[in-house]
Amino acid sequence: MPLGAGILSDPVEGGRRGGRTVQLAIDRSGAQPIYRQIADAIRGALQRGEIPPGTRLASTRALARQLSVHRQTIVEAYRLLGSEGRLRSGVGAGTFVEVPASPRPGRDDAGARPFSWRGLLRDPRLLDEDPTRVLSTSGLRLPRNAIQLAGAIPDRRQFPLADFAACVEEVLAGADSSLLDYAPPEGDEPLRRWVVEWLGRAGVRGLDEGRVVILSGSQQGLDLLGRLLLSAGEAVATEAPTYTGAFMALRHAGARIVTVPMEERGLSLDALETLLDREPVKFLYTMPCFQNPTGITLGERERERLLALARRRRLAIVEDHYDSDLHISGEPPRPLLADDQGGQIVYLGTFSKMLFPGVRVGWMIAPAELIDAVRQLRRAMDLASATLTQSAMARFCRHGHLERHLARVRRLNGQRLRAMLQALDEHFPPGAVWTRPRGGMTLWAEAPEGIDTLDLFHAAAARGVVFSPGTAFFPNGGGRRGMRLSFVRESEARIRRGVRILGELMSERLRGRRGEGTALDDATPPV
Amino acid sequence: MPLGAGILSDPVEGGRRGGRTVQLAIDRSGAQPIYRQIADAIRGALQRGEIPPGTRLASTRALARQLSVHRQTIVEAYRLLGSEGRLRSGVGAGTFVEVPASPRPGRDDAGARPFSWRGLLRDPRLLDEDPTRVLSTSGLRLPRNAIQLAGAIPDRRQFPLADFAACVEEVLAGADSSLLDYAPPEGDEPLRRWVVEWLGRAGVRGLDEGRVVILSGSQQGLDLLGRLLLSAGEAVATEAPTYTGAFMALRHAGARIVTVPMEERGLSLDALETLLDREPVKFLYTMPCFQNPTGITLGERERERLLALARRRRLAIVEDHYDSDLHISGEPPRPLLADDQGGQIVYLGTFSKMLFPGVRVGWMIAPAELIDAVRQLRRAMDLASATLTQSAMARFCRHGHLERHLARVRRLNGQRLRAMLQALDEHFPPGAVWTRPRGGMTLWAEAPEGIDTLDLFHAAAARGVVFSPGTAFFPNGGGRRGMRLSFVRESEARIRRGVRILGELMSERLRGRRGEGTALDDATPPV
Repeated sequence: MPLGAGILSDPVEGGRRGGRTVQLAIDRSGAQPIYRQIADAIRGALQRGEIPPGTRLASTRALARQLSVHRQTIVEAYRLLGSEGRLRSGVGAGTFVEVPASPRPGRDDAGARPFSWRGLLRDPRLLDEDPTRVLSTSGLRLPRNAIQLAGAIPDRRQFPLADFAACVEEVLAGADSSLLDYAPPEGDEPLRRWVVEWLGRAGVRGLDEGRVVILSGSQQGLDLLGRLLLSAGEAVATEAPTYTGAFMALRHAGARIVTVPMEERGLSLDALETLLDREPVKFLYTMPCFQNPTGITLGERERERLLALARRRRLAIVEDHYDSDLHISGEPPRPLLADDQGGQIVYLGTFSKMLFPGVRVGWMIAPAELIDAVRQLRRAMDLASATLTQSAMARFCRHGHLERHLARVRRLNGQRLRAMLQALDEHFPPGAVWTRPRGGMTLWAEAPEGIDTLDLFHAAAARGVVFSPGTAFFPNGGGRRGMRLSFVRESEARIRRGVRILGELMSERLRGRRGEGTALDDATPPV
Repeated sequence: MPLGAGILSDPVEGGRRGGRTVQLAIDRSGAQPIYRQIADAIRGALQRGEIPPGTRLASTRALARQLSVHRQTIVEAYRLLGSEGRLRSGVGAGTFVEVPASPRPGRDDAGARPFSWRGLLRDPRLLDEDPTRVLSTSGLRLPRNAIQLAGAIPDRRQFPLADFAACVEEVLAGADSSLLDYAPPEGDEPLRRWVVEWLGRAGVRGLDEGRVVILSGSQQGLDLLGRLLLSAGEAVATEAPTYTGAFMALRHAGARIVTVPMEERGLSLDALETLLDREPVKFLYTMPCFQNPTGITLGERERERLLALARRRRLAIVEDHYDSDLHISGEPPRPLLADDQGGQIVYLGTFSKMLFPGVRVGWMIAPAELIDAVRQLRRAMDLASATLTQSAMARFCRHGHLERHLARVRRLNGQRLRAMLQALDEHFPPGAVWTRPRGGMTLWAEAPEGIDTLDLFHAAAARGVVFSPGTAFFPNGGGRRGMRLSFVRESEARIRRGVRILGELMSERLRGRRGEGTALDDATPPV
């Protein structure tokens, strides 16, 4: 029985505010949570096309008043629809109905319009809504020698440049002209053999070398998989927060991103099950070790449950082990791939995090079924990776340089992580929370309620500290209180100083904000 | 007034041959050519969905009999629809209705089926129909030291490996660790500056350095442009024959390829105009200089006409100058980009042909309007190209190694081209024709009627000569009599020997075939 009607859309037309009323049937008997009922009603209206793409929805406050429910109920409903990729929140601008990724090709009326390349773009929206823009410091007046807590980027000062140069020179000295000729799309054999051995040590036994494909960085693997598998509008599940470059690549391949929240011991498996019940998902993209941005590693029991769930639900998984060799102590975490009984896992690895990114060398363990397809698509994309860098990296690893480097940076990263955790304990205000990673490069912190980390980002930059604001890591909005803090790029002293400054800025804001209400939360529901 | 009815489709169901009758209205008064009327009628039936994708059409002979027209009339009608990307001919298998590139995403019933990666593919057809497969020699018993007239690949023995190695070592000696760090997606500044100067010498004045984007080979540029601009099913015009890698990349990006035939002085501008009258075309992909595979350079008047046509019709052009610096004498051909008044041309260049391909370095001159979009998509694809190879190539060019190398290979290529043309005059049988390029790497020959160059390819391989069979270069079928012959990979003596063997094999076939009729032409209409 319909108990409420809300003005859902909120367009401003010709200076006059219009609106679109949608009947929302709410059953207050408690059979289903009210936020879910509201979400279901809005979802239905969206599916029937009653609210056009791009429409701005009513604010959570306004809708809550109309329906006589608590505002948090509307926030939850919007959040759910956001996680389904149906709504998107513009920063400080409200909540909007998602625009479908691929516009229909129609008859061109180019003759009537002046020539414009922009008019030819497949999907201008993808390009306008660049989620990495908030990470950019190019518009800021950043002091020289700012403290870098931003980026999941290894410490440049640790790069073993001389060892690498020696390997390149060895390759050149022994090379014939095939070094400069076309090469196979799957990559050079010595490097592919090394990948098999390296993964063998991490617990992946009996891996067929034919499944190893060398890539120009693991980013290319994400792009390639998206294009191989995704039709426009198909759903891909990612963690939220997740790696920005992943959902950008997947969206460019046509994906609709649906999200699974991160919890203390990894992605929420309950949420994943609910998601799979609700709709077909082409694959799950997951970082089980030292997840970017949170640094969280999937718990042992959760890992078993995910593997069982994947088998039971026939879920394809893309496992990104971008920094799994950066464990601070003990053994490297065991990849899901090591226990992939159903052959359902594609694995991505890279030198970019454990060593250096500039050579652009990564790898994929592809399903045997898809090897020919991967080779063909790679040929269409860019033919192959350069032979020189592949050969140099194979030699670098064979000479033991990689392991010596890893031993060094693991020790260093451990010291820096401890320094950061100590400083967080000391300087972050009450109400702030953060993760305690066992390796990787970054941790995730959440500011106390009422603090917008985008605002904090600008204030911190002015004081010479850079971090990554949380919103960049949420495919469908959210993360206004989050921040990714890198513990691998600076000395312990500078890390302490950076964290102290962030803590001070937050405390100032909390003092200033008292009595102001929660203006931020009101402006943008965290979908 | 309907004057004919043809059984158009030709499925074999349950062992019984079925068929689908479509009314074909033919007006024999001569107002419109009959082949066009038939093509229009079939197109209509296709558009109305009366003939499902994948259907095999009746043979030209059968349909001609039913409609009481000459068989050549049906061949022409099928050819026209083939050039529109609506029909495709399977080698030796008949003519089929094209399957749309992007299947609609539907609800997944994964739960009911066993897990299969193949079942998750976006478009298995693209991967099954690999047009490069006919170029592969992997299944052949090829003698050692076979004569390589295949491939548009520079002569490996000419690669200036020592000069390149010296440049890499210079870069390494002067490098700091930024060499191994993340780099900008648009590429390194010194190399981009060199591209501006290089193009300046080819007549492109006042080029803004901000428009230069370094790529991992120009293949990546094709892929990137396809993805930036194309929605599934949109038409892209290419020459026919054209570069196989181009239409593969464009098809992977969702393109429907429509073709414009090559004529003696470049692509047929009449056919291009007719095409543009008929349907919207997202862009034209063209190689105006030493076109691959034909070696033809667009005539001076034709160049003017194409530029005027582009302005008048607001046609976007992707200009591929992959080997324009390999002119054998005189000045390099002037790129279309040099006279791009409307800002409608994207230009692609590469080191792969004029120097060596293994470093994977090419470049794009992108429209100013799209630079941000190109950078963003490149980041999603693979972030950036490796800095080491970019720096080494910039240094290589600055040291004058490129020009010295070009002077050497131009002279050599000239000698080899003359040797090949002489040998063709001497050894190819009457009825064979070929192009006479002024530069580049390959020429195009057509065997006399009745000779299938795919068959010739196998026979020639057994005798130690490899060339590229023509069918690989036609996006929508055709080319059964064509062959691409490289004149840059072998010595003059071996080129003469290779051409002599091909000539002998053709003559043998012509003698054996007398009185056999034209079985080949009958089996597969050249759509």
